[in-house]
Amino acid sequence: MSDSNPTEMATPPSCTADFCLIPIGTPTASLSKEVAEVQRLLKKSGLKYSMHSAGTTLEGSWDDVMRCIGQCHSMLHQNGVVRIQSDIRIGTRTDKKQGFQDKIDAVVRLLEKDA
Amino acid sequence: MSDSNPTEMATPPSCTADFCLIPIGTPTASLSKEVAEVQRLLKKSGLKYSMHSAGTTLEGSWDDVMRCIGQCHSMLHQNGVVRIQSDIRIGTRTDKKQGFQDKIDAVVRLLEKDA
Amino acid sequence: MSDSNPTEMATPPSCTADFCLIPIGTPTASLSKEVAEVQRLLKKSGLKYSMHSAGTTLEGSWDDVMRCIGQCHSMLHQNGVVRIQSDIRIGTRTDKKQGFQDKIDAVVRLLEKDA
Amino acid sequence: MSDSNPTEMATPPSCTADFCLIPIGTPTASLSKEVAEVQRLLKKSGLKYSMHSAGTTLEGSWDDVMRCIGQCHSMLHQNGVVRIQSDIRIGTRTDKKQGFQDKIDAVVRLLEKDA
Repeated sequence: MSDSNPTEMATPPSCTADFCLIPIGTPTASLSKEVAEVQRLLKKSGLKYSMHSAGTTLEGSWDDVMRCIGQCHSMLHQNGVVRIQSDIRIGTRTDKKQGFQDKIDAVVRLLEKDA
Repeated sequence: MSDSNPTEMATPPSCTADFCLIPIGTPTASLSKEVAEVQRLLKKSGLKYSMHSAGTTLEGSWDDVMRCIGQCHSMLHQNGVVRIQSDIRIGTRTDKKQGFQDKIDAVVRLLEKDA
Repeated sequence: MSDSNPTEMATPPSCTADFCLIPIGTPTASLSKEVAEVQRLLKKSGLKYSMHSAGTTLEGSWDDVMRCIGQCHSMLHQNGVVRIQSDIRIGTRTDKKQGFQDKIDAVVRLLEKDA
Repeated sequence: MSDSNPTEMATPPSCTADFCLIPIGTPTASLSKEVAEVQRLLKKSGLKYSMHSAGTTLEGSWDDVMRCIGQCHSMLHQNGVVRIQSDIRIGTRTDKKQGFQDKIDAVVRLLEKDA
């Protein structure tokens, strides 16, 4: 436990976040239009990102990553979506700098020994 | 779709977020010490919050809520936890202002009609 | 690492799961009607559960808990919801039997020492 | 609302699930060994799956997918991990059959029109 006031602490300088954004109350069950809009925003953001079928993974400082996801909500609200829910898995670590590709590589190296 | 640059947009002015924080590589399987530290930080934050068995729900602006969760990570890192993963469910809406208690009340009112 | 075939293993005999179910493509942004339906199903299930503003926590065997959440999807599909997404946080442990109330109690005991 | 008893309903015949499994109380902050074990189990399961940096996506019936994730927990418990938490995003739909690659393709087609 620390003596410093944690509410004045800086947020982590780097993180990996994976988010899945769901518009609620949209007229159709298709989400591809909204997901494409999100991808366009991410491209403009300058952050490193990677889309997969269940979400998008982002890398950057905690503040940059979270602002970017918040802007995705704001943009879709501006486009007329009245309610949005996102699930975010976010990880931080102090023992080493590890990007999202490094995480995959570490597992693949282990699996290659099986062959 | 908007002409404005979404990467310059403001994040949502209000949100409800539920987060579950998991320290990784800690010596024991118990997390109650870390969860208690998080609760102490939340108390100091001034944000409205409510702990349940699978996480803690927070209310506030997108930026305040996300900074607070980031500070929980920073505080535990400072306490020696080298890796932390959080799962965050975050919702925003523009049609009405709804706090987390309002969401429960809306469901309870429907269930009371069953009796 | 084990010699036994893991695809023939039994699933865990007990777990705690917290789920947040989101109907997609519904005409309105309100989810309280669907959440109330889910609560009615849970009541009939015989499983121990607790609703909070960001989801519902369930206790039971892995198979019973997962079947119950799957039945919530099936029920809402039968009611006309064409697409549903759930976020589930599920935990299992072998060192002790811990229900969801025990998890809260462990934290509250630590916080009471602050006073 | 239906007259049939929802607790006797079948679970959905197909789903897409993305899960991120976290061992708790392990001696190190590295999870690559456990993730590799999970990938080996998935390979034996016969289910269609795809690993990414923030989890693994699975396709199959609700029961097959959930049993498989439960077996990942059981296997790691047997290997000595005393506590495990998974975050699962699971989606079901009745309007069409859509695998996880179809979801990506639908977005990519929209983005290609931007060029």
